[in-house]
Amino acid sequence: MSAMNEQSRAAARAVDEARLWRRMMDMARFGATPAGGVNRAAFSPEDIQARKLLIEWAAEFGFSTASDEIGNLYVRRAGTTDEAPAVTGSHLDSQPKGGKFDGAYGVVGGFEALEAIERAGVETRRPIEVVAWSNEEGGRFQPGAMGSAVFAGDFALEDALMAVDTNGVVLRDALRETLDSTPAMARRDMPHAMAGYVEAHIEQGPRLENDNLTIGVVSGVQGLCWYRVEVFGAEAHAGTAPLKGRKDALKSAVTMVAALEQLMADESDTVRFTVGRFECDPGAPSTVPGHVLFTVDFRHPDLATFVDLGGRIKGVCEANARGSEVTVERIIYSEPVVFDAGVIDLVRGAARALDLPHMEMVSGAGHDAMHIAGLCPAGMIFVPCEKGLSHNEAESASAPDLAAGARVLAACLVGLANR
Amino acid sequence: MSAMNEQSRAAARAVDEARLWRRMMDMARFGATPAGGVNRAAFSPEDIQARKLLIEWAAEFGFSTASDEIGNLYVRRAGTTDEAPAVTGSHLDSQPKGGKFDGAYGVVGGFEALEAIERAGVETRRPIEVVAWSNEEGGRFQPGAMGSAVFAGDFALEDALMAVDTNGVVLRDALRETLDSTPAMARRDMPHAMAGYVEAHIEQGPRLENDNLTIGVVSGVQGLCWYRVEVFGAEAHAGTAPLKGRKDALKSAVTMVAALEQLMADESDTVRFTVGRFECDPGAPSTVPGHVLFTVDFRHPDLATFVDLGGRIKGVCEANARGSEVTVERIIYSEPVVFDAGVIDLVRGAARALDLPHMEMVSGAGHDAMHIAGLCPAGMIFVPCEKGLSHNEAESASAPDLAAGARVLAACLVGLANR
Repeated sequence: MSAMNEQSRAAARAVDEARLWRRMMDMARFGATPAGGVNRAAFSPEDIQARKLLIEWAAEFGFSTASDEIGNLYVRRAGTTDEAPAVTGSHLDSQPKGGKFDGAYGVVGGFEALEAIERAGVETRRPIEVVAWSNEEGGRFQPGAMGSAVFAGDFALEDALMAVDTNGVVLRDALRETLDSTPAMARRDMPHAMAGYVEAHIEQGPRLENDNLTIGVVSGVQGLCWYRVEVFGAEAHAGTAPLKGRKDALKSAVTMVAALEQLMADESDTVRFTVGRFECDPGAPSTVPGHVLFTVDFRHPDLATFVDLGGRIKGVCEANARGSEVTVERIIYSEPVVFDAGVIDLVRGAARALDLPHMEMVSGAGHDAMHIAGLCPAGMIFVPCEKGLSHNEAESASAPDLAAGARVLAACLVGLANR
Repeated sequence: MSAMNEQSRAAARAVDEARLWRRMMDMARFGATPAGGVNRAAFSPEDIQARKLLIEWAAEFGFSTASDEIGNLYVRRAGTTDEAPAVTGSHLDSQPKGGKFDGAYGVVGGFEALEAIERAGVETRRPIEVVAWSNEEGGRFQPGAMGSAVFAGDFALEDALMAVDTNGVVLRDALRETLDSTPAMARRDMPHAMAGYVEAHIEQGPRLENDNLTIGVVSGVQGLCWYRVEVFGAEAHAGTAPLKGRKDALKSAVTMVAALEQLMADESDTVRFTVGRFECDPGAPSTVPGHVLFTVDFRHPDLATFVDLGGRIKGVCEANARGSEVTVERIIYSEPVVFDAGVIDLVRGAARALDLPHMEMVSGAGHDAMHIAGLCPAGMIFVPCEKGLSHNEAESASAPDLAAGARVLAACLVGLANR
């Protein structure tokens, strides 16, 4: 589907750059931080304000709204039939020191596409929906991508409801407050059928900007696993304990990380291997460390490589323990996702038809689309963000790029809704 | 001087194991912790109580007391002349979670030696003194070994008086309170001549216990230097930033530590090389670390090796920075100290004459004797401590071992005082 029909073209044309930008800034007021970012935790008062704003926008156009048991919020424009809808969306919650665009763009840009389709007077066979998935960031309640994971059956609703934040608030209670804030809202069961899903998002990396491109045609999401490695040595006096008898947790951990770097060596620079957290106790200069905790974040787009390298992490740590005890626990495991070829073609075709410079790329970060891809044909649209910065209050994106992404999205939604 | 004369022998015989142990326990009441250790910060109310107890003991025997401008406290048994005294001592302050023996043994055991000499009716040509050096641990006011360093002219009195604790208390004020608590005490100028100095201390390492020996004949103190290494990389998203473009402060730091381990490789196991503090920011599993701070603690008894290896630490860090910026700052530098051959012989001779199993050893930790060794012939006597534990509330030593050390000390002091 590389040619675009007149309906899709009309919808794309009706996207309004200034209106979209204004809405992005309106949304960014909820949880705005002094440094220009956003702190909008899932099911917080700020999240509730953001949800209410989306509901207000929907009401202006007579779009219906509904939510489900995990708080996912749906805005629906009716089709000429009640067949399964074409869906877009992302999330309204943010990192504690997040930016204005991560997640919010997929919801606000999705609404802009919906309004454009409406203003262009385009009728579609299927309904079109915009979803704000609950708690994608996982900053307050773990795990992240919770709304889409529960929707897709990848995570149990009962477990999600029992999540507790650092203040001891149980998710069930925070969610009830959120749902009670809009008592008239219709309820839906999970999951319900979707004809297709396209999510728009900032890239969160530098490649589009570096290559001066506007649209990323996302072919999939790389696999991601996290390991938590704990090294148990024995504290000793730095001046007196001979080196040969020490169980130095720091030196053991350093050797493990160096060995993991060798394991992960990759000329093609496709592997993503990060030790982001590294804590050493007791942390006194003249005491041999007795305990180290570090994390491994490993990502790869190819399933076979992902499984092979990921499966060797534990063994490499154990083989380099140098007399310390070591425990290696896998705390996140998410295999690579390959998006639907038809949706990828739809996105590429729309970008081409709209003369937008584009490239195919794999997402480095996880997104709600990963879970929805198990239920229906799914894909994503990336737009550039400044210097690739994200999860950062300085996160930024340009109004023309955001509008370009919304045009591609509007065209794709019309296409999916008439399939 | 390997044979011991009758005066020395009589003094050694008069050491009373039960009395010494009782005094150790009496002293340990000041700052006693629930876990059985001692928290007695320099110039604290507990330190003042400890000083007053020592002064009480001195008064019982008519020994004179005096203090100087940094609060070092002297107990003096007169000689038949006023020539420069033979001196012993250590410190009464402790680590925040310290033990009963570190430092206190050198003062209380020194007083036991003085009482034994007195009770044995031994007259000496020179006076004999026991000193409680101020603030050896440096737990509250930095730097440590302050009293002996200021006495020896290794650290300026004016700088010492301006030290501030974490509550904002200036050392000058805490010291004034300490000195005002004993208003009648005589004052002395610094430094004053000493004929010789021998300090008794627990080993703070496992070697005597492991070899089933009672006395360590300390030949010197190994050199010690500390470096503070800061690595400045650039934060990035673990999922999106290609490895080749990263400035990963953690991976840079790990490579530096591994290279330092190679530099410090030593078949003889004499080198002491420790990375005790290692902090990584921001510490999120999915963020490439932008900053790492770590410390290097390096010790060696041989001056040439100490200077050579210590001098290469900065270069090794810089050569392994892997694109990060690195700063390497030397924050402590203390060259190896070799004690006086005559004093070493005196200690060895006394241990041998008293049939105490002994070995010659280098001190792994720093002591006040390091500073005094620049002023007069100096040496040290070590006794075993359980499992080598020190700077720990579980620190322990046996009454017989402590008494054995005090016997050797009494003999040495008589020897030095008649030289």
